[in-house]
Amino acid sequence: MKAHISILFLFFVFTCFAQNHKHTSNGELLYPNIPGYTTLKTDLHQHTVFSDGKVWPTIRVHEALRDGLDVISLTEHLEYQPHATDIPHPDRNRSFELAIAEAKDHDLLIVHGSEITRRAPMGHSNALFIKDANPLLHPKDSVKPFVEAKKQGAFVFWNHPNWSAQSPTGNPNYSQFHKDRVANNELHGIEVINSGYYDKESLELALKENLVIMGTSDIHGLIDWDYTEKGNSRPITLVFAKEKSEKGLKEALFNGRTVAVFNSLFVGKEEFLKPLIKASITIENVHYEGKTQILALTLKNNSSSDLQFLNKMNYSFYGESPLFTVPAKGELVLKVKTLEILKKLDLKLEAIEAFIAPDKNPIIDWEIKVE
Amino acid sequence: MKAHISILFLFFVFTCFAQNHKHTSNGELLYPNIPGYTTLKTDLHQHTVFSDGKVWPTIRVHEALRDGLDVISLTEHLEYQPHATDIPHPDRNRSFELAIAEAKDHDLLIVHGSEITRRAPMGHSNALFIKDANPLLHPKDSVKPFVEAKKQGAFVFWNHPNWSAQSPTGNPNYSQFHKDRVANNELHGIEVINSGYYDKESLELALKENLVIMGTSDIHGLIDWDYTEKGNSRPITLVFAKEKSEKGLKEALFNGRTVAVFNSLFVGKEEFLKPLIKASITIENVHYEGKTQILALTLKNNSSSDLQFLNKMNYSFYGESPLFTVPAKGELVLKVKTLEILKKLDLKLEAIEAFIAPDKNPIIDWEIKVE
Amino acid sequence: MKAHISILFLFFVFTCFAQNHKHTSNGELLYPNIPGYTTLKTDLHQHTVFSDGKVWPTIRVHEALRDGLDVISLTEHLEYQPHATDIPHPDRNRSFELAIAEAKDHDLLIVHGSEITRRAPMGHSNALFIKDANPLLHPKDSVKPFVEAKKQGAFVFWNHPNWSAQSPTGNPNYSQFHKDRVANNELHGIEVINSGYYDKESLELALKENLVIMGTSDIHGLIDWDYTEKGNSRPITLVFAKEKSEKGLKEALFNGRTVAVFNSLFVGKEEFLKPLIKASITIENVHYEGKTQILALTLKNNSSSDLQFLNKMNYSFYGESPLFTVPAKGELVLKVKTLEILKKLDLKLEAIEAFIAPDKNPIIDWEIKVE
Amino acid sequence: MKAHISILFLFFVFTCFAQNHKHTSNGELLYPNIPGYTTLKTDLHQHTVFSDGKVWPTIRVHEALRDGLDVISLTEHLEYQPHATDIPHPDRNRSFELAIAEAKDHDLLIVHGSEITRRAPMGHSNALFIKDANPLLHPKDSVKPFVEAKKQGAFVFWNHPNWSAQSPTGNPNYSQFHKDRVANNELHGIEVINSGYYDKESLELALKENLVIMGTSDIHGLIDWDYTEKGNSRPITLVFAKEKSEKGLKEALFNGRTVAVFNSLFVGKEEFLKPLIKASITIENVHYEGKTQILALTLKNNSSSDLQFLNKMNYSFYGESPLFTVPAKGELVLKVKTLEILKKLDLKLEAIEAFIAPDKNPIIDWEIKVE
Repeated sequence: MKAHISILFLFFVFTCFAQNHKHTSNGELLYPNIPGYTTLKTDLHQHTVFSDGKVWPTIRVHEALRDGLDVISLTEHLEYQPHATDIPHPDRNRSFELAIAEAKDHDLLIVHGSEITRRAPMGHSNALFIKDANPLLHPKDSVKPFVEAKKQGAFVFWNHPNWSAQSPTGNPNYSQFHKDRVANNELHGIEVINSGYYDKESLELALKENLVIMGTSDIHGLIDWDYTEKGNSRPITLVFAKEKSEKGLKEALFNGRTVAVFNSLFVGKEEFLKPLIKASITIENVHYEGKTQILALTLKNNSSSDLQFLNKMNYSFYGESPLFTVPAKGELVLKVKTLEILKKLDLKLEAIEAFIAPDKNPIIDWEIKVE
Repeated sequence: MKAHISILFLFFVFTCFAQNHKHTSNGELLYPNIPGYTTLKTDLHQHTVFSDGKVWPTIRVHEALRDGLDVISLTEHLEYQPHATDIPHPDRNRSFELAIAEAKDHDLLIVHGSEITRRAPMGHSNALFIKDANPLLHPKDSVKPFVEAKKQGAFVFWNHPNWSAQSPTGNPNYSQFHKDRVANNELHGIEVINSGYYDKESLELALKENLVIMGTSDIHGLIDWDYTEKGNSRPITLVFAKEKSEKGLKEALFNGRTVAVFNSLFVGKEEFLKPLIKASITIENVHYEGKTQILALTLKNNSSSDLQFLNKMNYSFYGESPLFTVPAKGELVLKVKTLEILKKLDLKLEAIEAFIAPDKNPIIDWEIKVE
Repeated sequence: MKAHISILFLFFVFTCFAQNHKHTSNGELLYPNIPGYTTLKTDLHQHTVFSDGKVWPTIRVHEALRDGLDVISLTEHLEYQPHATDIPHPDRNRSFELAIAEAKDHDLLIVHGSEITRRAPMGHSNALFIKDANPLLHPKDSVKPFVEAKKQGAFVFWNHPNWSAQSPTGNPNYSQFHKDRVANNELHGIEVINSGYYDKESLELALKENLVIMGTSDIHGLIDWDYTEKGNSRPITLVFAKEKSEKGLKEALFNGRTVAVFNSLFVGKEEFLKPLIKASITIENVHYEGKTQILALTLKNNSSSDLQFLNKMNYSFYGESPLFTVPAKGELVLKVKTLEILKKLDLKLEAIEAFIAPDKNPIIDWEIKVE
Repeated sequence: MKAHISILFLFFVFTCFAQNHKHTSNGELLYPNIPGYTTLKTDLHQHTVFSDGKVWPTIRVHEALRDGLDVISLTEHLEYQPHATDIPHPDRNRSFELAIAEAKDHDLLIVHGSEITRRAPMGHSNALFIKDANPLLHPKDSVKPFVEAKKQGAFVFWNHPNWSAQSPTGNPNYSQFHKDRVANNELHGIEVINSGYYDKESLELALKENLVIMGTSDIHGLIDWDYTEKGNSRPITLVFAKEKSEKGLKEALFNGRTVAVFNSLFVGKEEFLKPLIKASITIENVHYEGKTQILALTLKNNSSSDLQFLNKMNYSFYGESPLFTVPAKGELVLKVKTLEILKKLDLKLEAIEAFIAPDKNPIIDWEIKVE
């Protein structure tokens, strides 16, 4: 299967994205570990001057440190080299090497990755954990790069499958090419959030085909200009690893332990998203107020995302709306009308900005003892 | 029926309220008119040093002007006069008179009102549009003030019916006393939002008994300290009047044309809340993007509340989450995957922070022509 | 000597003040102790509804706590009672009593004071540390209040001596009345800063006549509206006391140990202002940079005022302008070109917003050892 | 004369600069024209990946547009190419060409420039208005680049002459090499402000040797990280040109019509700095207040720098300190005690953060008619 890349990039960069998910805290991204796993904050789709990005790889390292990330990958387009006049025939590993050098005194993992870049229907895919990017370069053949990536043990995911420049309906086109790659174990994941764009049809596809759910910034310019100064945090993938290491990350990705996050939007499989939201809320200072039958609970949010919940108990709230938000890195006192004095309460809340399937939110339970 | 007020105020002031509905713009409150009516922004429950408040009435006038309100009422407790040592036996009209004088050069209506203050089960009620507050003062009799208020043509509403100091379950206690008042046309409305506390059981009662839905600040201290500096706007009642005048306001209140608002929370009857939300969003710049089947719409929010919506169309969004927010006084570009080129679109969104009944949100329709 | 107060208040409240001294930190006021003395932050000229202010005395207590003050006085006009219709014939001690009660669980001293209010040339004066305000009330006689204040052991200061409503030139009119009061030990201090207005001619007079230098807010409305939200801190008097107590404060005031402060403006006698500025800067991390002859010093500002300095050494700075600011509660690294390696440096800086006399700034010395 | 560049860059980048000149407005830089000239905002010393900078030239164009600059130059080190492994043997004009292309639809002039980079005592120099950068590359000869630059008609200035990595005293070393260049008309200007560092000895040298006064950012990383997020604006050179064009700029630079600006610090020759400050203040609403002899003036600041002034009149101020600030893009009402009713006032203020020579500030006069 062959692809011509000449007119491939006419609409290349998503020119803007919706700016309404602004409910995020300033500064460092923060998400708790979940039982059995360390939560790694990753942005595994980024560009520099070594493909069509606008900055040297060192800037990407410092942006990641400012955001408190654990892992990044600089996934340069193998085939699209608009700066080739100035950076001719580069070793496709070069961006990785420069980032590794810059990060050497910091607690930041740099994963070796590359973007395999084709026109529709093949589209763009990122291969991570590669050993040498150069053998993946086969501009005239769309299959060989995947074969080579597999040979190198890569984890591969499909980028912005719904990109309107390649799919005018805005829906992912799951072609025979993709089916073959999945069947051959050459494609493992799919972006459901890319540069601020969430796509619920891509989530549907991820669940149906058991593809790993990914969220990435796909940054070309500056994180500050594209995200921070608009009140947004960059999209990331939370990866639930047995250890903080490249090995741990890889094992976790291949086993699909991810949640994609953009500001207050969470997308992931129920088995990871539920414990993540549960761990994000700590409940303290449980007591009945005065001589009332009103139970007060302090909900502390251990994450950098606002968490919005809908009450799913039979008990209603005193004062609070059934739809309420625990602010990022902040707290909220919730008062529950229990109508009698209870010894324990099963707090049940629907996390309405968390999606475990298209239009489906998880309900989280916290068992609370009243002292 | 008699009431002792000696221990009535032990827990008088709601000491705090939940601070999570922060999704509001800075500065002036802003809400659009709805078809056939002028929207009046009112705060009809406030206190000054003439009962248990902490400021002179002139401060209340300036707070209202800063917030862009159209109407206020200083509803001093008739019977509770903790400053009586210093402000002895005051004419109960005095607070009103001082506010009228201060407001004379401003476009702010001052409505003459008083709070009738009893212990449970009678509780507290505000009488508005009275002519003389003094005849309402009957500390030993709970019925006479209502009879007098009715004689003066007052619109009367029940304050914080769920107040835990008077109802330890935190639910409204709709007593025989209240039923009698309603039957006698002496009680017309009920607070569903008081000082940041929303009560869905009070809303349920309002709808069942056809009581007018009210929201008020019940401010005693400073609006800045209690609301603004915490990122909140004061709770208000939007009243949909035939004209901006005391007469217009009164007619509208007696006919129940209200919506209570606190930050991004709206509570009201469907017939008023739906047109309010509909008018709060103007849709502009409708066009298909490039050669795609993706229809872009710019949603402008004409209100000072963030408006959060859930997609209720069969079409899904390109990029945007089905749950999204149009920021207060801001805008959002929404992209709809229509899958074919349409001539018109019926945009259908559920306003999830607007309640037309307990746990029930309105779905709003906008018919959009594609040019 | 008699005074009519009927037309006295036509222009009573300073309607605005210059808003340019904004170089102050947010939040709590902070100034260091000086050798031998505890620094007390005081605002000794304030009003409530018990004269022509707009708030109940309790609000003044909470404003003071928010600003981190040590001492306040509610100095109601004895003779000017615009709220007399509602607060008739008040005991002139009442405002004090209410503040004392509110402050009882807080570390805030309330000093009993009153304002003696006359037309020009007598003007307004505050008497502090009185025991009973009522005997000071002699509307028909301007001398008797001072005699009584003296009898009670009061510290008395002249308010806004340059007030244009009483002195159309804007200069203080040091009349025979004032000379007599001073000669009789009935007048001890003078405001050089009132409600944001600094007057250098009043400073000149203070120094010439050995009157104690005072700065006050003269607040009538809300501290938030008049100061904070405009980026200003309220004017205060720093008093250098042997102990934090009313006794300590009184001894210090009678001995003239004060500095008036408004944002970054300091006015006081050299013997107190120099040690105050000196103590406000701590110097740390003194070292030569690399192989250069450039000595780096970290200047930490222990105060809530920006401190602006002009270099007065023969050495010049590396990088820094000779005129520079150490930000409030912040720090600055200063690099001095010493041209050779020194063992010690005599850092000499002129504090250009500190006035020890009209148009005269103190030069402060810090002896610095190079480790 | 030869130079080895091997160890030249050990301390290359000024690692930080003093952060105290924060008195600047957010957003676009703004300075008024002066009589006879258009004021051009320029930053003529910047780097990209084409020497030791960290971004592609396009980012520099967008940074300049965000700051509202009129002119930039990307002055890559000719001899220092740390990215040579990846960007080998580049055409030294390349950075310029890419910037020109990016700026083509914007009102931003790109001046062709290069940095001639030598160790001490020659140091670094920027040549502007060159036609071809390549012939300036003579790593083994320090004179030839200057000869070639002159041949191309370049305007050349000495960069950071006081840089401690090349001059351990932190003072400029005006060597025979520099004297020769000046004598041969091969060196015309000198940086007195580089990347936040102001050097008064360099100003002294500029005035003595009649070198053109320059201020530049010398940016290598991101303007946002190095300046904006610390509350600073980048240093610039204001150039007073007969027209906004490269020709106009060049004529103005060769004729020394410049003022260097960093936040609120201005450095320039009196003949340009005085009219700049004068034009930066517009005086409005001149009137006597009520029945007083106090003349009120509204001073509007038309620049993006805070302007701090010291009163130099015999008249003193009502309320205001003799040392005051007119905030950037803001205004201040100044009240002058004229003691009698004047027909005109000669307002005389010293601009204390403006330097026309070391430790010398200009006094500006505004003749004001009283209507």
